[in-house]
Amino acid sequence: MIIVLKPETTKKQFEHVLERIRALGLKPMVSKGTERTIIGVIGPEDALRVQPLEAIPGVEKVMPVLKPYKLVGREFQAHDSVVDVKGVKIGGKAVVVMAGPCSVEDPKMLVDIGKQVKAGGAQMLRGGAFKPRTSPYSFQGMGEAGLKLLHQVSRDTGLPVVTELLDVRDLPLFEKYVDMIQIGARNMQNFELLKEVGLTQKPVLLKRGFSATISEFLLAAEYILSEGNFNVVLCERGIRTFETMTRFTLDLNAIPVIKRLSHLPIIVDPSHSSGVWDYVAPMARAAIAAGADGLIVEVHNNPEVARCDGPQSLKPKKFAALMKDVGKIARVLGRTL
Amino acid sequence: MIIVLKPETTKKQFEHVLERIRALGLKPMVSKGTERTIIGVIGPEDALRVQPLEAIPGVEKVMPVLKPYKLVGREFQAHDSVVDVKGVKIGGKAVVVMAGPCSVEDPKMLVDIGKQVKAGGAQMLRGGAFKPRTSPYSFQGMGEAGLKLLHQVSRDTGLPVVTELLDVRDLPLFEKYVDMIQIGARNMQNFELLKEVGLTQKPVLLKRGFSATISEFLLAAEYILSEGNFNVVLCERGIRTFETMTRFTLDLNAIPVIKRLSHLPIIVDPSHSSGVWDYVAPMARAAIAAGADGLIVEVHNNPEVARCDGPQSLKPKKFAALMKDVGKIARVLGRTL
Amino acid sequence: MIIVLKPETTKKQFEHVLERIRALGLKPMVSKGTERTIIGVIGPEDALRVQPLEAIPGVEKVMPVLKPYKLVGREFQAHDSVVDVKGVKIGGKAVVVMAGPCSVEDPKMLVDIGKQVKAGGAQMLRGGAFKPRTSPYSFQGMGEAGLKLLHQVSRDTGLPVVTELLDVRDLPLFEKYVDMIQIGARNMQNFELLKEVGLTQKPVLLKRGFSATISEFLLAAEYILSEGNFNVVLCERGIRTFETMTRFTLDLNAIPVIKRLSHLPIIVDPSHSSGVWDYVAPMARAAIAAGADGLIVEVHNNPEVARCDGPQSLKPKKFAALMKDVGKIARVLGRTL
Amino acid sequence: MIIVLKPETTKKQFEHVLERIRALGLKPMVSKGTERTIIGVIGPEDALRVQPLEAIPGVEKVMPVLKPYKLVGREFQAHDSVVDVKGVKIGGKAVVVMAGPCSVEDPKMLVDIGKQVKAGGAQMLRGGAFKPRTSPYSFQGMGEAGLKLLHQVSRDTGLPVVTELLDVRDLPLFEKYVDMIQIGARNMQNFELLKEVGLTQKPVLLKRGFSATISEFLLAAEYILSEGNFNVVLCERGIRTFETMTRFTLDLNAIPVIKRLSHLPIIVDPSHSSGVWDYVAPMARAAIAAGADGLIVEVHNNPEVARCDGPQSLKPKKFAALMKDVGKIARVLGRTL
Repeated sequence: MIIVLKPETTKKQFEHVLERIRALGLKPMVSKGTERTIIGVIGPEDALRVQPLEAIPGVEKVMPVLKPYKLVGREFQAHDSVVDVKGVKIGGKAVVVMAGPCSVEDPKMLVDIGKQVKAGGAQMLRGGAFKPRTSPYSFQGMGEAGLKLLHQVSRDTGLPVVTELLDVRDLPLFEKYVDMIQIGARNMQNFELLKEVGLTQKPVLLKRGFSATISEFLLAAEYILSEGNFNVVLCERGIRTFETMTRFTLDLNAIPVIKRLSHLPIIVDPSHSSGVWDYVAPMARAAIAAGADGLIVEVHNNPEVARCDGPQSLKPKKFAALMKDVGKIARVLGRTL
Repeated sequence: MIIVLKPETTKKQFEHVLERIRALGLKPMVSKGTERTIIGVIGPEDALRVQPLEAIPGVEKVMPVLKPYKLVGREFQAHDSVVDVKGVKIGGKAVVVMAGPCSVEDPKMLVDIGKQVKAGGAQMLRGGAFKPRTSPYSFQGMGEAGLKLLHQVSRDTGLPVVTELLDVRDLPLFEKYVDMIQIGARNMQNFELLKEVGLTQKPVLLKRGFSATISEFLLAAEYILSEGNFNVVLCERGIRTFETMTRFTLDLNAIPVIKRLSHLPIIVDPSHSSGVWDYVAPMARAAIAAGADGLIVEVHNNPEVARCDGPQSLKPKKFAALMKDVGKIARVLGRTL
Repeated sequence: MIIVLKPETTKKQFEHVLERIRALGLKPMVSKGTERTIIGVIGPEDALRVQPLEAIPGVEKVMPVLKPYKLVGREFQAHDSVVDVKGVKIGGKAVVVMAGPCSVEDPKMLVDIGKQVKAGGAQMLRGGAFKPRTSPYSFQGMGEAGLKLLHQVSRDTGLPVVTELLDVRDLPLFEKYVDMIQIGARNMQNFELLKEVGLTQKPVLLKRGFSATISEFLLAAEYILSEGNFNVVLCERGIRTFETMTRFTLDLNAIPVIKRLSHLPIIVDPSHSSGVWDYVAPMARAAIAAGADGLIVEVHNNPEVARCDGPQSLKPKKFAALMKDVGKIARVLGRTL
Repeated sequence: MIIVLKPETTKKQFEHVLERIRALGLKPMVSKGTERTIIGVIGPEDALRVQPLEAIPGVEKVMPVLKPYKLVGREFQAHDSVVDVKGVKIGGKAVVVMAGPCSVEDPKMLVDIGKQVKAGGAQMLRGGAFKPRTSPYSFQGMGEAGLKLLHQVSRDTGLPVVTELLDVRDLPLFEKYVDMIQIGARNMQNFELLKEVGLTQKPVLLKRGFSATISEFLLAAEYILSEGNFNVVLCERGIRTFETMTRFTLDLNAIPVIKRLSHLPIIVDPSHSSGVWDYVAPMARAAIAAGADGLIVEVHNNPEVARCDGPQSLKPKKFAALMKDVGKIARVLGRTL
């Protein structure tokens, strides 16, 4: 931790800052420059990080040296984590694709799409049973019935299933029916939910909040790991910017950044970021080229009657074509599909 | 709803769009221009809004004419709502100020600050018992003990108390101890939480998510009203932008915009948006000048040892000085404090 | 300047960094912590700032201690600057209001509006002769004829005139006809234009680019001062964010931030930020309450035929009413209008 | 153009709107719904677009149906444009890579880098002679001497050269020495500069302003085409968002969006968006996978002494390795390098 003092800081204020540092059991190292006095603090930075040092009179700014997260960081674990979802390994050499409808609507539709995405090359099935909708008047999902349907189609197709959890009270149902729990973008900082899934051993797919910095994203994952669950896969799904031609702006640069900072796998959702099916394939290809460990893609066999996100859903045939390109690009990077 | 067709739309696609509209019991009105064909749809727009019309081949874009919310809108209720929190009326002629520490830390501190903010002119007490913290290693609040403390200091000072609810499972505690429930920025789209507080009659202080559009903000309020609870006060607390000299960018223009669109009261939090106590007073004054119905301000009698948000907390003396200016500006607008 | 090394930095890399610092005539001070080695650099930070230190292997990050600007900073000049525009003093006790149409359209209209804004309380006349328009098919302004009209109406009303310069080649015309040169938001980083107006002594109104950080804004002003022209007034006019209900998001917190960092006066444009006349008055009041030194407001006597920015223009009557409130709020802050 | 009236609009206001439309020689088509009255306007939308219709009392909103640009649009020209820069064809089957140092510093360095990027697979040479720098104290480029150097190295290597123009007054020099004129992000809305390069036939590389919407970007290109110069190549180089781990957020989704809207070629700059050389290769690969027509990459043979942008410059060896991957990904999309 480095503390920069204001040029007009008095001697008394300066002494007071030193005192506060020593009172925390840490050692201040003072360096007086021509224009500023700087105090380096030796010792565990954590003790200092939670102190409101900027509230002390005379302090101009406080600059942390270390990163605010631990367990998710490369310094804690240098090698890549691989998360196992019922045999599907995410974060290894093979790129993993999860596909399916935005929301579970009826048994026949889900079975059909499940078979089609499997045929197209998907290794996991996605589909929402509980839907976080901007408007209270939009379809809110089938709920428990939807979970049971997912579970059954998962058994029939052999595809492990990932679906979103909205409410801590539903966790027992998810533990029973679901292979991987998704925490959606809107709940990335629902810390109670993070703590609860942290207490299970279920794999978690944690989506980046659409206005979360990469640092906040990693700290949200840290909540889960710090409770004991290390089976976390990150997902970039677009951030909110001024551009309105796409629903969100997919931040693909977050992939190499996160690969450098963290050992956790990271996949990409090109459907929600684009909001238009036409843009899903280019962004899916780009995600793999940027080094993503996988994709989660919305596929629907009749988008124009979908109860949710029809405009951004790929038809199964387009999905299968995309998978071919994804496989080829994965191989350019020395990976497989 | 207005549907614009692509220039290259085929006759068959065009017929299909008309068919879909009629199948919903609505009436299409076609207008063929020189460059585009446009279809106006007469009838309840809601039926159409939830349909994925943009997924129909040949459709270029869909433009809604009506607003997506109802109960919170001026068209539903033309006059301003006034929310009563144990006798304190928010949204009326008088501007209301809530003040107190970021987090409840110990009894003595809370009693002292409570008395000081009352003396300074506050009509309500704020203070966090459950804290949503970016890092799992930060102080998470005193929990239930904190609620009890707030309740007691509220009784002693006569100030109604507002504090944040993070977890649906804690709602019974809040119903018992708290006068107004705050839904924080990070939970603005925690729809399960919104629905639950919508089922009570407790006044709710709903903070704008830091990347929520005004439209999403009003829809979040609509979730609460649509469950039956109309006692909702909105709170602008800054949005996330590229500027980093302040924690967030306070969007004061949201006040006149929301006043035009909605009948709900709106107050402003100048502390969390600024992140620096020095900027709190100017932004508090500006908020009242822009037409806000009140303020929620962080006040601490010893900011440099605060367990949360010390750097942005006002000392009681500064708070009292600010209140004087706030009162004068309120009077310029024909209001009182 | 503080240099943080990576944990895995080799001894050879470490030595190389020290060597580079010494080669610049500076003195490195090494501090080895348990987790990171930090190098503080004593000596003129400017020499280091322009060096690509982050490109040196082993360097994790470089943290500057000093601010990147000089002449515009409070450390260079502690007291507030007052800029004199033909007798109108900006930055002193009195708040200054500039008003007029978006663009100069015809003589009669300009004369009428000039008289009306003067009667309403404006001390300066604004109006565009050269207009930077997003589309090449929009009205581009009257050009030189517009400048002459402004000059004449300025003489008739006694109001000094401010208008925007787009092209370095037009500077001689501006020196002849104009009292204050506006550099618009889109040209805030048109460094050639900044240098040229820096070589004159004409007062400059520098608008913040709509995606410029406060630091970049001050550096743009530094360009002008560093050429010798200290007569610079800053103008906050809204930044670009995700919110679309207003054209831009007015960043009023920038006022107290800039007041702390710089001695230059700062005024606010509530018209371009809002984009809707209805929001201009609340935001103008808020700007003064936040501590702005003045306002620049669009006023038109017949907005629905204005060739530019009609929807955001106030009618003269509304403008006069606003001036009354602005005066009262200014007095709350110990200022005058 | 569609005009939506407010629910409370009076009959007189309604008649007045119709009158205004007819006065422009256009035909209003009125559609009275249960909740809103809507007026569709038949006839050239351009006449209406420049009218301040939203300033007319009773008008709630105005929704344009057509796009604001013409010459750059797919409706004007359905097939892809190919821009020829001295024999290098941009926008065709082959992906084109421009590479070189951020700024021209000395003859030897430029010759060396020129040879190295050519050997690595670049088809064009980049390098700045006039540099737009945030701070007036940063290296501003070699100016005319830099242009001459670029010209000479271009002759020696056979690589056409692209470099940035900052000032209209330098255009004659650029016409003499340069093969493609770059308009940088900071000048994307320097409309005088756009008009001037529009009057030449030199190929123009137009970079997206870092806070420009895609629509504004295309309108900036429209300025150039509308003056007669159709040799425009667009360049996505990152937009400004709240994320600070990278200098900008590369908006790769802009590629398929622009490919749909416009016939102009679009390339990507992965260096300026990332700001860190480590991220350049993944983003370059992703850009090609997303469908970009090429890349512009910063390469320096000794980044740690570069006078500009050292931290984001690739060394020639890394560049050559990247080119191999880029070639392979191009082939997945049916293209060549």
